[in-house]
Amino acid sequence: MNFRSCFRFGLLLPGLLAPGAARAEDGYQLWLRYDRIADEPQRAACATALAQIVLATPVGADSPTLAAARDELTAGLGGLLGIKAAIVIEQSAPDAELGDDGFALRAIEHGFRRGVTINANRDIGVLYGAFALLRRVQTGALWDRLSVVSAPKIHRRLLNHWDDLNGFIERGYAGFSLWDWFQLPDYVAPRCRDYARANASIGINGAVLNSVNANALILTDSYLRKVAALANVFRPYGIRVYLSARFSAPIEIGGLKTADPLDPGVIRWWKDKADAIYGLIPDFGGFLVKANSEGQPGPQDYGRTHAQGANVLADALAPHGGIVMWRAFVYDQNNHDDRVKQAYNEFQPLDGTFRPNVSVQIKNGPLDFQPREPFHPLFGAMPHTPLTLELQITQEYLGGAVHLAFLAPMWKECLEADTFAAGPGSTVARVIDGSVDHHPDSLIAGVANTGTDRNWCGHPLASANWYAFGRLAWDHTLGADAIADEWIRMTFSSDPRVEQPILQMLLSSREAVVNYMTPLGLAHLMATDHHYGPGPWVDNLRADWTPVYYHRADAQGLGFDRTATGSNAVSQYAPPVAQRFADLAACPENLLLWFHHVPWDYRLHSGRTLWDELCLHYQEGVNRVRGWLPPWASLKGLIDDERFDHVQALLVRQEREARGWRDACLLYFQTFSHRPLPPGVERPEHTLAYYQGIQLQFVPGSPGGK
Amino acid sequence: MNFRSCFRFGLLLPGLLAPGAARAEDGYQLWLRYDRIADEPQRAACATALAQIVLATPVGADSPTLAAARDELTAGLGGLLGIKAAIVIEQSAPDAELGDDGFALRAIEHGFRRGVTINANRDIGVLYGAFALLRRVQTGALWDRLSVVSAPKIHRRLLNHWDDLNGFIERGYAGFSLWDWFQLPDYVAPRCRDYARANASIGINGAVLNSVNANALILTDSYLRKVAALANVFRPYGIRVYLSARFSAPIEIGGLKTADPLDPGVIRWWKDKADAIYGLIPDFGGFLVKANSEGQPGPQDYGRTHAQGANVLADALAPHGGIVMWRAFVYDQNNHDDRVKQAYNEFQPLDGTFRPNVSVQIKNGPLDFQPREPFHPLFGAMPHTPLTLELQITQEYLGGAVHLAFLAPMWKECLEADTFAAGPGSTVARVIDGSVDHHPDSLIAGVANTGTDRNWCGHPLASANWYAFGRLAWDHTLGADAIADEWIRMTFSSDPRVEQPILQMLLSSREAVVNYMTPLGLAHLMATDHHYGPGPWVDNLRADWTPVYYHRADAQGLGFDRTATGSNAVSQYAPPVAQRFADLAACPENLLLWFHHVPWDYRLHSGRTLWDELCLHYQEGVNRVRGWLPPWASLKGLIDDERFDHVQALLVRQEREARGWRDACLLYFQTFSHRPLPPGVERPEHTLAYYQGIQLQFVPGSPGGK
Repeated sequence: MNFRSCFRFGLLLPGLLAPGAARAEDGYQLWLRYDRIADEPQRAACATALAQIVLATPVGADSPTLAAARDELTAGLGGLLGIKAAIVIEQSAPDAELGDDGFALRAIEHGFRRGVTINANRDIGVLYGAFALLRRVQTGALWDRLSVVSAPKIHRRLLNHWDDLNGFIERGYAGFSLWDWFQLPDYVAPRCRDYARANASIGINGAVLNSVNANALILTDSYLRKVAALANVFRPYGIRVYLSARFSAPIEIGGLKTADPLDPGVIRWWKDKADAIYGLIPDFGGFLVKANSEGQPGPQDYGRTHAQGANVLADALAPHGGIVMWRAFVYDQNNHDDRVKQAYNEFQPLDGTFRPNVSVQIKNGPLDFQPREPFHPLFGAMPHTPLTLELQITQEYLGGAVHLAFLAPMWKECLEADTFAAGPGSTVARVIDGSVDHHPDSLIAGVANTGTDRNWCGHPLASANWYAFGRLAWDHTLGADAIADEWIRMTFSSDPRVEQPILQMLLSSREAVVNYMTPLGLAHLMATDHHYGPGPWVDNLRADWTPVYYHRADAQGLGFDRTATGSNAVSQYAPPVAQRFADLAACPENLLLWFHHVPWDYRLHSGRTLWDELCLHYQEGVNRVRGWLPPWASLKGLIDDERFDHVQALLVRQEREARGWRDACLLYFQTFSHRPLPPGVERPEHTLAYYQGIQLQFVPGSPGGK
Repeated sequence: MNFRSCFRFGLLLPGLLAPGAARAEDGYQLWLRYDRIADEPQRAACATALAQIVLATPVGADSPTLAAARDELTAGLGGLLGIKAAIVIEQSAPDAELGDDGFALRAIEHGFRRGVTINANRDIGVLYGAFALLRRVQTGALWDRLSVVSAPKIHRRLLNHWDDLNGFIERGYAGFSLWDWFQLPDYVAPRCRDYARANASIGINGAVLNSVNANALILTDSYLRKVAALANVFRPYGIRVYLSARFSAPIEIGGLKTADPLDPGVIRWWKDKADAIYGLIPDFGGFLVKANSEGQPGPQDYGRTHAQGANVLADALAPHGGIVMWRAFVYDQNNHDDRVKQAYNEFQPLDGTFRPNVSVQIKNGPLDFQPREPFHPLFGAMPHTPLTLELQITQEYLGGAVHLAFLAPMWKECLEADTFAAGPGSTVARVIDGSVDHHPDSLIAGVANTGTDRNWCGHPLASANWYAFGRLAWDHTLGADAIADEWIRMTFSSDPRVEQPILQMLLSSREAVVNYMTPLGLAHLMATDHHYGPGPWVDNLRADWTPVYYHRADAQGLGFDRTATGSNAVSQYAPPVAQRFADLAACPENLLLWFHHVPWDYRLHSGRTLWDELCLHYQEGVNRVRGWLPPWASLKGLIDDERFDHVQALLVRQEREARGWRDACLLYFQTFSHRPLPPGVERPEHTLAYYQGIQLQFVPGSPGGK
């Protein structure tokens, strides 16, 4: 090679990657991003106001939890403000207003000293206060004479992990289990600590580590030692571990012949097991149990009631302060009554027969985490029993980790629903926070959407749901919009050019999904097993798992008659609610087809027929998703490329799949309605047979991983 | 709260996490770490010598591959040296010495200009040269008048991924599959590009994406589009995609009644399928096939030979330049001949009957990736067929991602083994690189140890095996020690206080595992299915899957007689090799029990009896692992805490499990030898029954995930 000629033909190329260029933003930090605040006056003002942080508790002594608070403040204020705040621990008087977990943030203005005191009755309150303080800095929520008092309305704020021991997560869409059972207890990955940090930052204080479809092995000594290793890492962050217990464990790992809850050997086995657990994990939270539901063993196998089953476990845990959360998600294909009535029928009569340390855990709606359901009729109907509200953060029926669906508006709908159980104002929120029925304990659970994906939740915007669950568990009066706004500012940016488009997307997303999947009170039109795409035509399974069971389409109309002329499920609600739902004209239109079989030509409030309105709702869902594409595109360059590209790809897919939902459902329902698509509704791209022929396999989170 | 009193009791605490403290080292960067060189004179010298980089090819035009080289050099030199090198592309004359993939690095010293020219015949050679240049900077391999020419000895250097479509990796110990089939093709995660980068950095140029236990779905249009999306990301890095093909795919996804390779419909189906694949992936590499092996379908189902099966696929691929890699890993429980003889018996007679674009893929040894095996007798025995050497990077039989086992010494043992097929010097390496039999194509494959674990390979030191595979695939004459040294310097540090202890650990690790698992030529003593712990007593499976089949322990002695008095497997080797193996005195002692049933009191070269030597080898394995603990502890503070802690935890476990292997195996063999443990061997901690009672479940990588 001749250098002279080489250089003659040479082309000088700029380096594309500047050394030390901005680090890639891969979502791992979640909302705990502590990048330097760009606005210099704001940064300087914060830095001055936070020169000193006082951590004040009645004990006034250091602890692992206070160390965690200090570490977080040091990292957070160092990153956000570029300061090394002076952090001191002090003793303070107890403050009843703060309860066990609450905190007060108060400005220190004392001569030249400026700072903030974080006051709490327990160390964990200080940690919550530290995160709250950082959140204010992150979101630009500036203050004069800061004075904030905050205490959670619900005592136990839990994540439920549906994780199997082989790493698979049932209905998990963001990779695999965070618990590496094979490495435990020898090694606990640093990510487990970050999991606890993230939870603590939003006030979550417990986690059920394994799936409700439980493997009894988790209760063996070998696994309990693994659980204990996780508990040790979680403890400074106030996260207690709970386990799903398999009711037949006394047989499977105990060598007994029966799991009959009235058998003395079984009673003793559970007592011994509880003692062993607390020997390893002194602050163990308790058991979650799915019994006599979808094939799981339970007390009914022995002719006993759910209460008899729950009470044996509760008695074993009670001496140690543990609790039982007993799921009400039961239904039986051999019971020919309306599936959505069965949990009420089974559990309502048992009210008052559970031990005080048993809570009955109830999904938000009576079916199964649909995009929209009415609230579950058991809320308000079991005044003598603490009830746990079970929400699903993971999007089993709302597009997995592919579709954007910010769920806080859905949860607020449930929390604010008025049961009228003790007169007007007996909202679901007030039932579960214990204020309606004056229960000392109160619980809320969210089925987690976390996994080993680097960004934790799969979709880069899906951690908004984890965040929102924690924030609502702490304070169910917060608005969905306020929560979304906090999350966006912490996770992306406070720049209104970023914050506003994302806010509009988040807040419109759940209704978009309802519209293109199951509008007007439809439910469970999803394909079999994976629940990912449309399958309204499916009729070849046990009846209560088929879409045709739920939509009841026929030549006359559409919807499930749950009034007195039908299954009379409305009767399970308090009279004011029941009357409203039962009245075709008064029933909220977004639940119309849940409660009524409605003629195709019935006129809705809009003046349009049911058929036309149905079509237009499906189209509206598509239009909404399509409408997110330009605002998202406008974020190019305003946010990091990695998250931008990922969301962009997902939105393109979501729009395509929303069209698929619309076309598949409308073509199918059209075989009953025999009516044309109204103006404004796009023609289907394919035939009904095409959509019916789609067989998805290996959809993440499907039972059995198939 | 009274501030005055508060401050009186206050304790000023230092911030524990300095803002902007050194970033955590989580292993994601592998050996491509570009942290600034600390030695300032060295850094300055490099910076001067690398002020300009010339990328010179006969085409002399930019391309995605040259852009990748530029990006890597810019990031690497920016990080390591803090410079922004001027990078130019030039035209140069072809250089036959460099071949398709080789490169030359030559210093530019031209007046005041200093720099390096990377010369290659194809753009990919420039990328390989860029990585080689960066490696020299990273490892401190300084130069005067740099002049390096390097070209790979083997053309196709492939990873084989045993990944299932549901994300599970068969024999995977580092998480789950890197291919997110459900997100593809819409979204290709950035990690896929980093996978390609890492491979390119060590010269790997192909990847079989799915398990040899293949699902036919991978060949459907829907999955091929996903494969194409990955291929597009891999292409600039020179990585071609290959797929494992299920032999019965014409039935399962083609709707045919047969997969008989002589059926005209089947022949046409494979042709059409190949055409469709190349329509989507113009540089598709070809098929890997596991046929008539461990339950997989194959040509023998129709009375056809392996060659007849392979040739149909080969004919379909040939017009597009694709190849077939047909695995020789076949054995049949109904064949009562020695399992290790069956592949030779099946395949050797077929030599010369395969199409030119078929390679027979053969594991290093005749059994199955044991800690030590003799080389496979097919090497050298099929001179008319290109042979692929299949190595296993993932540690199926060497402790998964828990045990440290640096495999380069094992692979070197195989590569350097002399088959004597064409006289002395006919090493396995020269058989597979084509030089013995003058094949135009040459291939090597490694079963990958990668997964979704953040550090890619589970054990923080396990990426040394990925690295070593690539380096040996490029140049099988490299020493294991030199490769280990490169890897340590790039992945950890060139500080001799770090480099030396890790080097000693790596180089002694494989023999340690041999000693505590299967010393003196023993094999396959692992427990059932997961192959993780000891199970020498297992005898309740099909015979050729049981340890008792392999060790043949009895009152007289131990080992499998494969001489003429036994299975005569030695006869499959060329006479000089066969004679050596067959001669009890001449047989290498580290393969003694592979070839001979040896009396317990037989005296080895040491003068000790077989029994005593066996015990002492087991003890030596334990001692070796135990001996790593102090040197590793000495690294505290010299390397990052995250990797330090993780390896520390793993070494503690490995030492414990090495003791378990020793105790279980010696207690079991003692039931035959009836001899005491010799001095120097520690007493077993538990009884034989204790070890026999251990039932591991949910071991990563186990078939079925159980």
